[in-house]
Amino acid sequence: MSDRPLIIVSNRGPVTYDRDESGARVERRGGGGLVTALRGLREDHDVTWIASATTAEDRVVAAEGGGEVVLVAHDPHAYDLYYNVVANPMLWFIQHELWGPAFSPVIDRELHDAWRDGYEAVNSAFADAVVAQLDNRPDAIVFFHDYHLYLAPRMVREARPDAKLAHFVHIPWPADWTTLPLEMRRALHDGLLANDVVGFHTKRWARNFERSCADLDCGTERTLVTHHPISIDVEEFDALRESEAVLAAEATLDRPEKLIVRVDRTDPSKNIARGFRAFGILLDEHPEWRGRVKLLARLDPSRETIPEYVEYRAAIETEAAAVTARYPGSLEVQVADNFPQSVAAYKQYDVLLVNAVYDGMNLVAKEGPLVNARDGVLVLSENAGAHDELGEWAVTVNPFDVWGQAEALHHALTMEPEERRRRARAIQAQVRENDVTKWVAGLLDDLDRVSA
Amino acid sequence: MSDRPLIIVSNRGPVTYDRDESGARVERRGGGGLVTALRGLREDHDVTWIASATTAEDRVVAAEGGGEVVLVAHDPHAYDLYYNVVANPMLWFIQHELWGPAFSPVIDRELHDAWRDGYEAVNSAFADAVVAQLDNRPDAIVFFHDYHLYLAPRMVREARPDAKLAHFVHIPWPADWTTLPLEMRRALHDGLLANDVVGFHTKRWARNFERSCADLDCGTERTLVTHHPISIDVEEFDALRESEAVLAAEATLDRPEKLIVRVDRTDPSKNIARGFRAFGILLDEHPEWRGRVKLLARLDPSRETIPEYVEYRAAIETEAAAVTARYPGSLEVQVADNFPQSVAAYKQYDVLLVNAVYDGMNLVAKEGPLVNARDGVLVLSENAGAHDELGEWAVTVNPFDVWGQAEALHHALTMEPEERRRRARAIQAQVRENDVTKWVAGLLDDLDRVSA
Repeated sequence: MSDRPLIIVSNRGPVTYDRDESGARVERRGGGGLVTALRGLREDHDVTWIASATTAEDRVVAAEGGGEVVLVAHDPHAYDLYYNVVANPMLWFIQHELWGPAFSPVIDRELHDAWRDGYEAVNSAFADAVVAQLDNRPDAIVFFHDYHLYLAPRMVREARPDAKLAHFVHIPWPADWTTLPLEMRRALHDGLLANDVVGFHTKRWARNFERSCADLDCGTERTLVTHHPISIDVEEFDALRESEAVLAAEATLDRPEKLIVRVDRTDPSKNIARGFRAFGILLDEHPEWRGRVKLLARLDPSRETIPEYVEYRAAIETEAAAVTARYPGSLEVQVADNFPQSVAAYKQYDVLLVNAVYDGMNLVAKEGPLVNARDGVLVLSENAGAHDELGEWAVTVNPFDVWGQAEALHHALTMEPEERRRRARAIQAQVRENDVTKWVAGLLDDLDRVSA
Repeated sequence: MSDRPLIIVSNRGPVTYDRDESGARVERRGGGGLVTALRGLREDHDVTWIASATTAEDRVVAAEGGGEVVLVAHDPHAYDLYYNVVANPMLWFIQHELWGPAFSPVIDRELHDAWRDGYEAVNSAFADAVVAQLDNRPDAIVFFHDYHLYLAPRMVREARPDAKLAHFVHIPWPADWTTLPLEMRRALHDGLLANDVVGFHTKRWARNFERSCADLDCGTERTLVTHHPISIDVEEFDALRESEAVLAAEATLDRPEKLIVRVDRTDPSKNIARGFRAFGILLDEHPEWRGRVKLLARLDPSRETIPEYVEYRAAIETEAAAVTARYPGSLEVQVADNFPQSVAAYKQYDVLLVNAVYDGMNLVAKEGPLVNARDGVLVLSENAGAHDELGEWAVTVNPFDVWGQAEALHHALTMEPEERRRRARAIQAQVRENDVTKWVAGLLDDLDRVSA
């Protein structure tokens, strides 16, 4: 493997391009956990990265060609169908089990058309770009990422039967895929099984994949199904913790006797509305906390053009208003993408609430405990991938059970200092010893096995 | 087994009691598919049947005691919590995957209390009644039914370690149970695994049960997990078809050139709203059918005191109004419990639409084809248990895909007569050869195996 070049394929790339006021090209490091996590690979390996062009200047760069980042300029309409109809919300909602089958989804002609003219078309364009790269580097290993690219591996396999292909799925794999019409779910399973390796964060998601393959009579014999928990860059957070921006944010943080923190994108999978409900129940049922505890919710706006997300934002606001009406000042909601403020909140929490409906991993559950300075308690959903690693030291909650979450918050707030310290240190040690470099090493081991 | 008495335990019994105007006790045969299906057992075996008292007169009978039907008079508040909070909608919705996890359920203190004070309490009362019967007939086999009684087997097992216990689950078993808090889902799996046999309608539900047991580290080694598809009483339908009531209903049936029929309880699991949407799309996309085809929906009102059902009734009406506004007269909705009219519609359909979201079996898919006289085509959800047996001769639909359902209706309406006949006869033969007596025989075989 160490001798073989690597072609990374993901929808979002490590850089995007724009022009500044003078018209000069500006390169910006792309965001997202995936890009951060894979940065390590690029330091040590001969990597070509294929991604979608997402800005006007990206399209100019794409047309120029060359470079270690290959941008694919998709047809804009096809990209819209692929991204905004199929990948989000349809696949995202299925994989996080967010649909309510009594009423939603209603799969209509738009989805059928979007599957063919968007998802298949964009996957095909990615596959073409991969095959072109393989022509330059026939011994490269191709490493696909996530739910945007389920069909591309089969397309590449058909063009290059001997290629070495791997795929990592960063979101949950559900136990039941029947929400998606048969031909679509069969196609995406078949696409994934064209890889030599398919990886997930946890044993649970990997096992669900093997089950859903079995349900479709898709054999997994030719594919290595593995699991490696993604993690964070510990050094980066050690530096961030003491950075000026974080120290400044920390100085302005208004904290009462006890501070509960949550940090999330405004995604229905994050379960923000039920979390607010649970906090209100805590104050209803345990009046001794009124005026003494505050919930600080730092929310990063997400996918604001998708109707399901607009509806969810409204639900969050309704629940927040209900709590504030009963207990003014007890809930502070900050809707903004400001990471230093989030890290400041991480450092200061007494309780960190992560109650995700489903979550492939949830890095907040690793970032928060790593930098927290108060032996804060992690309250963690059993349906977050992070629960596999950290559950034994967290207070476990069921994401649907708001009464149980209220009781868990009370339990966390009243935990003895020694017990808090024991758990907090155990989580820190676990995160420190299993940081993102270990995830990358696990992936490289898998690639070694298939390239041998 | 043939030598051993049988104790059947189900929430609804084979009879209920009332008083007529003169004050005399009246015995009424209980409704429901389970009672019909198990009637056969009572003809050939020494059967005691334990069920809930559901009327005032039932409670009088319960107090008198004795008889082959033992009615258990529960505390009315406990019964309300057990039936209207835990069993319906919570367990019913989980098992038919009807919740929409982004927003529902919100499990609050009411559910926790209802679990303890309702579901546990009523199961405990059933267990006490079973143990009392076992004192009279120590060699009896106890046969529990359905989702109301998941906890009772463990309670009986603890009191009578050597008892022979079996359980049949008549509704789907889902792949994922995490909607229910851990202690509850563990308790109900543990309760079922106290049985010597646990039966389901299909291999799919049985396999999901083995998976959810594995997810909870609950071993199934000591329990025989089987599957037997329930069916209908063929003789009863052969007689019904020619009955005066059905012939009279048939004479008044208003049918255009082509008739599509659906017959359902107004339950969200039946997918009535999406079915109407699909029918509207059929007329939108295939204008040649306008004025020539009618959808007759015969709907039996169900669980009208449960908010989720009230909401679903409203959704049905909204979708029906949308179709009628575009295509007046094309949709006839009959909301009434009138079985002869349903059988008349069965006889007359060109297409029978069964598009259930999830369904343990769905007997409409067997009743309709058995009595249909027009070589009608069955359009059948892949998530109905009946699909395991009948899918190869049906037009399969995905319940979420309304565009696919519209295309399936068009395909069914345009199918060549010879092909229609071939499929209709194959389904009739399958149902005729695998009627309810075969289901009963399968259950008795299982009981033989465990009693040996």
